[in-house]
Amino acid sequence: MTIPSDLDISRATALKPLEDVAAQLGLGAHLLEPYGRTVAKISLDALEELPERPTARYVVVSAITPTPLGEGKTTTTVGLGQAMRHLGKRSAIAIRQPSMGPTFGIKGGAAGGGYSQVVPMEALNLHLTGDMHAVTSAHNLLAAMLDNHLHKGNALGIDPHRITWRRVLDVNDRDLRTIVTGLGGRADGTPRQTGFDITAASEVMAVLALSTSLQDLRRRLGRIVVGYTHDGEPVTAEQLRAAGAMAVIMREAIKPNLMQTTENTPVLVHAGPFGNIAHGNSSVVADRIASRGADYLVTEAGFGADMGAERFFNIKCRTSGLRPDAAVLVATVRALKAHSGRYEVVAGKPLPAAMLEENPDDVLAGADNLRKQIDNIRLHGVPPVVAINAFPTDHPSEHDAIREVAEAEGARVTVSNHFLEGGKGAVELAEAVVAAAEEPNDFQLLYPDSADLRSKIETIATKVYGAAGVSYQPAAARALADYEANGYGTLPVCIAKTHLSLSSDPTLLGAPTGWTLPVREVRASVGAGFIYPICGDMRTMPGLGSHPAAESIDIDDRGQITGLS
Amino acid sequence: MTIPSDLDISRATALKPLEDVAAQLGLGAHLLEPYGRTVAKISLDALEELPERPTARYVVVSAITPTPLGEGKTTTTVGLGQAMRHLGKRSAIAIRQPSMGPTFGIKGGAAGGGYSQVVPMEALNLHLTGDMHAVTSAHNLLAAMLDNHLHKGNALGIDPHRITWRRVLDVNDRDLRTIVTGLGGRADGTPRQTGFDITAASEVMAVLALSTSLQDLRRRLGRIVVGYTHDGEPVTAEQLRAAGAMAVIMREAIKPNLMQTTENTPVLVHAGPFGNIAHGNSSVVADRIASRGADYLVTEAGFGADMGAERFFNIKCRTSGLRPDAAVLVATVRALKAHSGRYEVVAGKPLPAAMLEENPDDVLAGADNLRKQIDNIRLHGVPPVVAINAFPTDHPSEHDAIREVAEAEGARVTVSNHFLEGGKGAVELAEAVVAAAEEPNDFQLLYPDSADLRSKIETIATKVYGAAGVSYQPAAARALADYEANGYGTLPVCIAKTHLSLSSDPTLLGAPTGWTLPVREVRASVGAGFIYPICGDMRTMPGLGSHPAAESIDIDDRGQITGLS
Repeated sequence: MTIPSDLDISRATALKPLEDVAAQLGLGAHLLEPYGRTVAKISLDALEELPERPTARYVVVSAITPTPLGEGKTTTTVGLGQAMRHLGKRSAIAIRQPSMGPTFGIKGGAAGGGYSQVVPMEALNLHLTGDMHAVTSAHNLLAAMLDNHLHKGNALGIDPHRITWRRVLDVNDRDLRTIVTGLGGRADGTPRQTGFDITAASEVMAVLALSTSLQDLRRRLGRIVVGYTHDGEPVTAEQLRAAGAMAVIMREAIKPNLMQTTENTPVLVHAGPFGNIAHGNSSVVADRIASRGADYLVTEAGFGADMGAERFFNIKCRTSGLRPDAAVLVATVRALKAHSGRYEVVAGKPLPAAMLEENPDDVLAGADNLRKQIDNIRLHGVPPVVAINAFPTDHPSEHDAIREVAEAEGARVTVSNHFLEGGKGAVELAEAVVAAAEEPNDFQLLYPDSADLRSKIETIATKVYGAAGVSYQPAAARALADYEANGYGTLPVCIAKTHLSLSSDPTLLGAPTGWTLPVREVRASVGAGFIYPICGDMRTMPGLGSHPAAESIDIDDRGQITGLS
Repeated sequence: MTIPSDLDISRATALKPLEDVAAQLGLGAHLLEPYGRTVAKISLDALEELPERPTARYVVVSAITPTPLGEGKTTTTVGLGQAMRHLGKRSAIAIRQPSMGPTFGIKGGAAGGGYSQVVPMEALNLHLTGDMHAVTSAHNLLAAMLDNHLHKGNALGIDPHRITWRRVLDVNDRDLRTIVTGLGGRADGTPRQTGFDITAASEVMAVLALSTSLQDLRRRLGRIVVGYTHDGEPVTAEQLRAAGAMAVIMREAIKPNLMQTTENTPVLVHAGPFGNIAHGNSSVVADRIASRGADYLVTEAGFGADMGAERFFNIKCRTSGLRPDAAVLVATVRALKAHSGRYEVVAGKPLPAAMLEENPDDVLAGADNLRKQIDNIRLHGVPPVVAINAFPTDHPSEHDAIREVAEAEGARVTVSNHFLEGGKGAVELAEAVVAAAEEPNDFQLLYPDSADLRSKIETIATKVYGAAGVSYQPAAARALADYEANGYGTLPVCIAKTHLSLSSDPTLLGAPTGWTLPVREVRASVGAGFIYPICGDMRTMPGLGSHPAAESIDIDDRGQITGLS
């Protein structure tokens, strides 16, 4: 079977007017601000006009621990949202805005794929309505005002060696990871070592995703800590008098973006925080709006359930007050085979040929990862549904193996064919999700605000990751003590570790036990509202490969985009 | 008399639907792509649908050599465009998009002012439709691909010491002027010294302004030279396979943005290239569209007539093929008094009190600058009209002095009161412009393409600037010889010098003679299509002051912007 390219499917979609798409969520046309013909911003006045209480069942889509190729979480999210409409449910989908760095790098776009896509994919993958650029601008204005403060006499007494605020750009550019700024002459600033992260890694992005209103955004921006004084006191964006202007720059960005799928299901695209050093979930504002106009709101959490779903529960839901009704775990034959440890999967390269042969034993050999991720959903009192994302190279016996494992754990499980068939291919999955979501559920946060930071870290490490314990480098231990002293101890924690293993070692597959989580350092996103311990090397600025996707992207004679995927 | 703030006037304006504004230019609603409720992009299909030949008289607004405060050129441009409607002319206005750097720095916004503003001013001064961000993204993707090329083995043999492509951000950030990138480890790139310019200084911005279509944009991007090989051969964006992706990033940015004035006159806002190292004029595409649907198209050229107007004639009109019918020279009492050399005017500080006293002699003492700038318009065969931009602190005798000088030069001259009175205050100016534009005119370029680069430079220096001659540093002479050898000799030249003097020395006021233009180095914007000799220090990345405008900008409890000016 051949299937057209994602770009061709996107282009062949008959788009509905956005007014009609919005009406499906009870949003009147007066609440839409069009950006071009295919995207609209939703005015936050929607929050005044919609019913006060959520009407929607709230479903989060997560995954088993993925291979470097990803396991089709966005595609499943879109397929499930579409399938709900086949069941007569008014559904909405909420996802993150993709970063332009990977679009032109190795990964390509992030609009889902096949017949379960957000369209037009080029609008989603390129600038959208400029929110990502607004984050870049607000972040870098704060950086400029910080360095200007040093240059103009440093009245706040900021220690140049303890500045934590870097700069950001939405591009894969390894040469910006570590730089020295302020060279030249006396008029050209203060020399110091710093660097750029990709915009998705900006705390401003995490703030955008977690704010509940424009006023809340303003307050959170003011609380951002950019560094410390010579006396060890935190210095905030408010003290640098930057937060007001940053909020002005972000005034449109706080409004969620409305798009549609290949089947015209409404999609709210909003914010795109990283999934390791940040919480990896789309915005609270989008979910607050969509949850009050739909029967089912399907949202995606980044990486595996130990990462995105854990933060969805313990950071995003803690902030928004919304309660999830079900969680989908995307599983693939290829990822479970990879968890057997018998194959090596590398991003940007084809799968080893042997992995494509029928082999349910390999699937079973990797199944501990699925078992543990099911357990991670259950820990939060939410019913799990395993979605087997079908690939043309899968064999029925391999799907049966996954089914067997999931059922033995008491989880619902279905095969889903949404890539090739759109919503129709995910109807069974939707039925299982509805059944799960209608069960009474006892959603619970994993830890209370009042627990201290170490106990929060240890709870996640031992209960979710399966670690035997946690070790702290001296700098990490000192930072935790400082943060408790600064009054940040009530914040939730966002543990930055590899997404390629339940452990902090990307080479440990399956469900490793008996290992210790090594906390190398701990940083604070006080504005966004979490503390993030760092376990292992976290790359916050990607590089380009030998043949970046950008090399194949162009316009043709009629001005149409070619080569975007 | 007290007048409300620009922001309050902007907010009190009754906006017309953009469809109605567009209809004034013969543009149907199907050609508009709304971005929010107050700005729309104009589809380039307009070029297919409008009459093939320009219908509009084409008027450029320039100025005498300004003080560091600026002399109200944008305000006059807007006032004149509005006044044309009072005369029953279908008018359109074309201006550059302001940079966000100065908006949050010392200068504030750039929407005109008083009752001659582009509204809403916050849309104009903040992101608009994201064109500036698209330029940033396209520029920095090329930079990342260039450094990636070095990192991946440098197959093209690029000499790291002869890389001319820097990075850009739309922020005033002096610490980014000179940086070292590629530090860290082996995986983090190749250490080298480079820096950031402000986005307005990007060659991609100059390309945007001079392109005649999306295809032309694509070709120009491909011709951008990023550096030289060890053998001295130029290396282009096309060779780095970046130009296609850059064009895709710029695909929406090539469409002009439609806004309106305080009197609902249509304004096309498009591109914002620097006025020293680039040509400082808004886009060719916007003028091509507006000139075919209006009776009068009024556009602004950056800085004094020696700078913006000279490039308007010899770079922009050379590229577009459009012929100007009249040129307005904005003159102010304060600027002519400053040209007397008797006062010091400093940006961000109030005028010296003595300058505000009635003193027509001071005006006459500075009048040589006005005489020379009138001459600079005449050199191109275009009739000049002097617009005295009235300030409340002016005295009638001072206006009379300007009138006397202008009339003695045979130029039309009027006092204009558009800041306080809107279009009504500029009706006399509009009448004078109509009279000038209806004269037969013999517009001519100052030099042919075929002249060599040195003779182009010398023509501008002696005829426009009033220099006695030109001197070349050895590096500049070498570069000119190289460019001729590379086949760039047929390009026009864009001389980068201070805008605060007709000469290259900002302290020489009036109309200095007997001086020599020192060409320190020469660079090439091959994609945009000009060579730029650099005379003096050109700052391409501004810094922030002790109290940046950003410190006073915020949102109020209702989410409204405060403090933006």
